[in-house]
Amino acid sequence: MRTVSWEGDAVRIIDQRKLPLTLEYSLCRDYGEVAEAIRDMAVRGAPAIGATAAYGMALAARQFCGLDKEQFLLKLEDAARELASTRPTAVNLFWALGEIERVIEENRGRDNESLFLKIFEAAEKIAGEDVLTNKKIGEYGNGIVPREASILTHCNTGSLATVEFGTALGIIRAAHRAGKDIHVFADETRPRLQGARLTAWELVRENIPATLIPDNAAGYLMKKGKIDLVLVGADRIALNGDTANKIGTYALAVLARENQVPFYVAAPTTTIDFEIASGEEIQVEERDRKEVTHVGGVQIAPEGIGVYNPAFDITPARYIKGIITEKGIVNYPYEGKLDHLKG
Amino acid sequence: MRTVSWEGDAVRIIDQRKLPLTLEYSLCRDYGEVAEAIRDMAVRGAPAIGATAAYGMALAARQFCGLDKEQFLLKLEDAARELASTRPTAVNLFWALGEIERVIEENRGRDNESLFLKIFEAAEKIAGEDVLTNKKIGEYGNGIVPREASILTHCNTGSLATVEFGTALGIIRAAHRAGKDIHVFADETRPRLQGARLTAWELVRENIPATLIPDNAAGYLMKKGKIDLVLVGADRIALNGDTANKIGTYALAVLARENQVPFYVAAPTTTIDFEIASGEEIQVEERDRKEVTHVGGVQIAPEGIGVYNPAFDITPARYIKGIITEKGIVNYPYEGKLDHLKG
Repeated sequence: MRTVSWEGDAVRIIDQRKLPLTLEYSLCRDYGEVAEAIRDMAVRGAPAIGATAAYGMALAARQFCGLDKEQFLLKLEDAARELASTRPTAVNLFWALGEIERVIEENRGRDNESLFLKIFEAAEKIAGEDVLTNKKIGEYGNGIVPREASILTHCNTGSLATVEFGTALGIIRAAHRAGKDIHVFADETRPRLQGARLTAWELVRENIPATLIPDNAAGYLMKKGKIDLVLVGADRIALNGDTANKIGTYALAVLARENQVPFYVAAPTTTIDFEIASGEEIQVEERDRKEVTHVGGVQIAPEGIGVYNPAFDITPARYIKGIITEKGIVNYPYEGKLDHLKG
Repeated sequence: MRTVSWEGDAVRIIDQRKLPLTLEYSLCRDYGEVAEAIRDMAVRGAPAIGATAAYGMALAARQFCGLDKEQFLLKLEDAARELASTRPTAVNLFWALGEIERVIEENRGRDNESLFLKIFEAAEKIAGEDVLTNKKIGEYGNGIVPREASILTHCNTGSLATVEFGTALGIIRAAHRAGKDIHVFADETRPRLQGARLTAWELVRENIPATLIPDNAAGYLMKKGKIDLVLVGADRIALNGDTANKIGTYALAVLARENQVPFYVAAPTTTIDFEIASGEEIQVEERDRKEVTHVGGVQIAPEGIGVYNPAFDITPARYIKGIITEKGIVNYPYEGKLDHLKG
């Protein structure tokens, strides 16, 4: 199941806001629609956002390649700016846009049509490599999954969060396919409920034994000794290993350490921000109050109440036992180790 | 605002399932309706459940006092059994029913009408004392609230969880009325959303500055140094101080200790179970999967996914800095201290 792909002259995405009730594909016909899809979380998950933005640039190049060269390049800059403004935390977005900018820079001399093709090929490469990357993360990660294991995960890090297969959920998928006896506990992940809506849907679809829990129950399950391993994804990892991920991740990491449960982050190396030393430099997106006051259109909180709705939190590296990438597993402490994964 | 009271020959409760959108009172005209209201959480909160069950016994006595004495007493036993079966964790329910049983025992010789009056008086006393108890908890608790404080709370422990005023939220109310500069962060408290629906509503109603957060954000706020104090209620406290409270409380307690934030439990002494040595003896209620898979009638999870939905968790005493009761504050360690609060 491919979350994002190129179809005709459009970018085809799964509209994740409709899941789990309907599996609906939606076509973005210009880069503005791609930006809107990312901003409104029709497509979400750090790796998926990166690939979608790259395709968005291909779409912009397709749209504007009839203009004269200077206008064309200006339009591409506009598109990159617009796509970069959609969400601030996941670094894969900026990485993918950076890759496309590099391609534009290297091919400025070509005619527009040929430049479009170069951008399109780069986007296809980003998307294709994401799938391979996830499978490698799955292989490395499977190495730390016991033959029988109860695994807790948070948010959605599956096919829907990537181009295909997934990071933390990709490891779960790999362990299941390897015949291991695993049971997944999926946090529902308020406020957007990616666990209840997306992870649960992927798990049911693949017949992986799984139990959905309110986020509030995760710590208690760990205390009762019911969890052997916690696997989460990441939206941005600093060079010291501090990790931005879905709100609630920090709490899980603290609870895991308190209960001696190994806590791992799974992410492609494109999620590492090689420009920042620690998590303190990561900007955490705050989203609309309505995500908290309403669920599925139903109002659950009174008018007049203040709301704080950060989309992510930062987990200090010391709580993270290891970071599982497509280049292998890096264990805590991370200083001087993550830099080597660049490029 | 009184959550439960006697009106004519009925028990009047606020139907909390309708909040925050509508403040609706509902009349229970027989003890079966009272049991249903408790089971379905139209009325909830340990102290409120206790008082409501006591009124339920008065209602049963009113219903059946036309029968001959033996039949009458059997019917009262049926009613007590039915009311006791509604919810297993909050000990106030069993305490209140025990009080009524004692009154029945002491007044077996009287005629039915006069026994009804004794039961009714006992129920009125339980309800009336709950209000006084909460005010005392508020006074003692206010003593540990700094003049400026950001206070995190979980679930609903306000007027709606008691007969009136509240326990943890009662302390917040007392501190606000004392002119302290407090700001409340209220966990929404999935799955039943008592924080979003009830606590937020009480706070807005009293103009107490407050912010609603997803449960997932509580730990992150503590890590950012934004919380000075955590105040929660309790459903059952063992003699060693282990405390059963709304699911998610254990996680908050661990996160509070990790971040050096004082964590207090506020509860009347009727919440102490003097029969049990530790939290291991507390039965934790598991509730319907639909509380997790649906919100306000809207389906949020796919068919076929397993669900684990414990209503409570047990927080080990070592995470709890103090227990605030109507008889004063007891500080950790609790061994040999809580027993003295009996009677």
